[in-house]
Amino acid sequence: MLSLTEQLGIQFPIIQAPMAGGVTTPEMVAAVSNAGGLGSLGAAYMSGEAIKNAIQRIRELTDKPFSVNLFIPNDHQADAEQIHKVCGLIEQACHELHFAIQPASPPYTYPFDEQIAIVLEEKVPVFSCIFGVPTQALLSKLKKNNTLIMGTATHLAEALQLEQSGVDMIIAQGSEAGGHHGSFIDRPQNSLIGLFSLLPQLGASLKTPLIAAGGIMNKKTIMAAMSLGASAVQMGTVFLTCTESGIPSCYKEALLTTRQDNTVLTTAFSGRLARGIRNKFIMRMENHRNEILPYPVQNAMTRAMRNESAKQNCPDFLSMWAGQSACFCKELTVAELMAELTKGLIRS
Amino acid sequence: MLSLTEQLGIQFPIIQAPMAGGVTTPEMVAAVSNAGGLGSLGAAYMSGEAIKNAIQRIRELTDKPFSVNLFIPNDHQADAEQIHKVCGLIEQACHELHFAIQPASPPYTYPFDEQIAIVLEEKVPVFSCIFGVPTQALLSKLKKNNTLIMGTATHLAEALQLEQSGVDMIIAQGSEAGGHHGSFIDRPQNSLIGLFSLLPQLGASLKTPLIAAGGIMNKKTIMAAMSLGASAVQMGTVFLTCTESGIPSCYKEALLTTRQDNTVLTTAFSGRLARGIRNKFIMRMENHRNEILPYPVQNAMTRAMRNESAKQNCPDFLSMWAGQSACFCKELTVAELMAELTKGLIRS
Repeated sequence: MLSLTEQLGIQFPIIQAPMAGGVTTPEMVAAVSNAGGLGSLGAAYMSGEAIKNAIQRIRELTDKPFSVNLFIPNDHQADAEQIHKVCGLIEQACHELHFAIQPASPPYTYPFDEQIAIVLEEKVPVFSCIFGVPTQALLSKLKKNNTLIMGTATHLAEALQLEQSGVDMIIAQGSEAGGHHGSFIDRPQNSLIGLFSLLPQLGASLKTPLIAAGGIMNKKTIMAAMSLGASAVQMGTVFLTCTESGIPSCYKEALLTTRQDNTVLTTAFSGRLARGIRNKFIMRMENHRNEILPYPVQNAMTRAMRNESAKQNCPDFLSMWAGQSACFCKELTVAELMAELTKGLIRS
Repeated sequence: MLSLTEQLGIQFPIIQAPMAGGVTTPEMVAAVSNAGGLGSLGAAYMSGEAIKNAIQRIRELTDKPFSVNLFIPNDHQADAEQIHKVCGLIEQACHELHFAIQPASPPYTYPFDEQIAIVLEEKVPVFSCIFGVPTQALLSKLKKNNTLIMGTATHLAEALQLEQSGVDMIIAQGSEAGGHHGSFIDRPQNSLIGLFSLLPQLGASLKTPLIAAGGIMNKKTIMAAMSLGASAVQMGTVFLTCTESGIPSCYKEALLTTRQDNTVLTTAFSGRLARGIRNKFIMRMENHRNEILPYPVQNAMTRAMRNESAKQNCPDFLSMWAGQSACFCKELTVAELMAELTKGLIRS
């Protein structure tokens, strides 16, 4: 049987996590793949056309495999009154920006059908997804293209559903992970599972190769994850401060100056549970938890604020997603980081 | 410099976690120490006299080092009205027990002074503590007795305070851990740190040897924790289902039949955040989070219910503390478990 790196056609068991919202530039994706890992385009917030352009740019920069990630759609709406209320709360919470929050209009996301059509048309080497299980129809189309499929699980019931669907690899996302937590089967919210517990318990019940995500920042943590049963790792936070990363400088600064975990889990920005550095917006919305709307509505309503905060290079009203080990971020090029991570690692 | 095992005078870097409430019987403590680990008496809920008797019994059963653990006291009270209200809620929540909840009277715990006097008088080899930093006066008395001191930290600020105080070893308690979480410097509650992130970030800032706790259930997880910077591990949940453990059979059954994490963090039983199997009492109190009183008041008010639930061998109103890897529990004697854990491990 082929190893996971052989299946993927990569040298090192290192996957750069798909981080949506402009973080994973084609330059970053290609640099990771060129260095022997698997670069991933976080395409969830992109139009079909933008995804197509990004894929073409990646292919100009590398002939190595790469991945494109999308959110499995779950339709949630909200009524005009709820939307009006939440926009008022958001505006109050970020008054320093001197910026009027307008209720965004539906559709709140680019249609999944439009996005996935490009993934199929472009026959991307790897498709990864989060927040659910791809339909059988989609899986068989992807398999006809020889596209490998990765799903994301935060606990055993999700991993079992993914395995049963026939995905090729499962990303085991520990509570340490930054950004969105990929839960799609509910559990009590205060019960995200730490990687130290998650990896062994998924490994004990699954046959599908596991990719560990959460708190992995250097060779030591890569080796520890692999010793607990992972065939590869997915690393996000560590790439945020790379030269090729598309985040605002105030966000990089926040990551580079922390000496310990200063993240929280919040739904304030997108309506979905995600881990990020606790800033003014998160704190101010903590008193309004029940008024936060579901994804994608909340995400659409905070978009203008997040963009404005980025434009003003103000860290207070941005979603500064980060994992619990962000204190190990360094300012390096992707090539330098990959060289550090893989020095002495056995190539497949 | 001596290694941690050499300092402690034990063969293997395995510490059985002190679990208060009758779990850590003298038989368990002695069996762990006799097998080359460090047994620990969870003495927080015991009177001075009971602690003295337990220590004497441990010494009859082993001549090896062992540890006694206490809670650093934090005084919290509640008024008669709050107590009356919470007793009503508790009674409602456990109506199936057909049991009247009487408001317990202060003092709600055995006095720390009485407990620590025995620890000093008996010159125990190791004193471990949680929920704070021992006073300098206490530390110097313990050091005069050649008692080694372990403190518990859940994040860096706590670990730095402990290091500065002069404790000999620091237990790094990850979010995966069962039972009480030892936080004593507040952080946003939804932000417990997973062991994968906690160990490296404490290691990067501290000189004191670290003991990893949370999700450690077998040799593989022991080795992973040590590769992330721990000098030893503290394991609790895995000892709960041992023959020598003092827990009710319904609690053992719950641990032995789970295939995945089914724990939550709750303050319902004691007033302090702790991880346990989500049962009826926890669920019913989820709607009354704001009425739960601080430790030790809440703990005293639920004591009769917990005892009655244990007496009826009913798992619904007991605190069934467990870590996120409880699915790896097995029914073994301590000697059998220790043999499994240490087979092939290098002795110090």
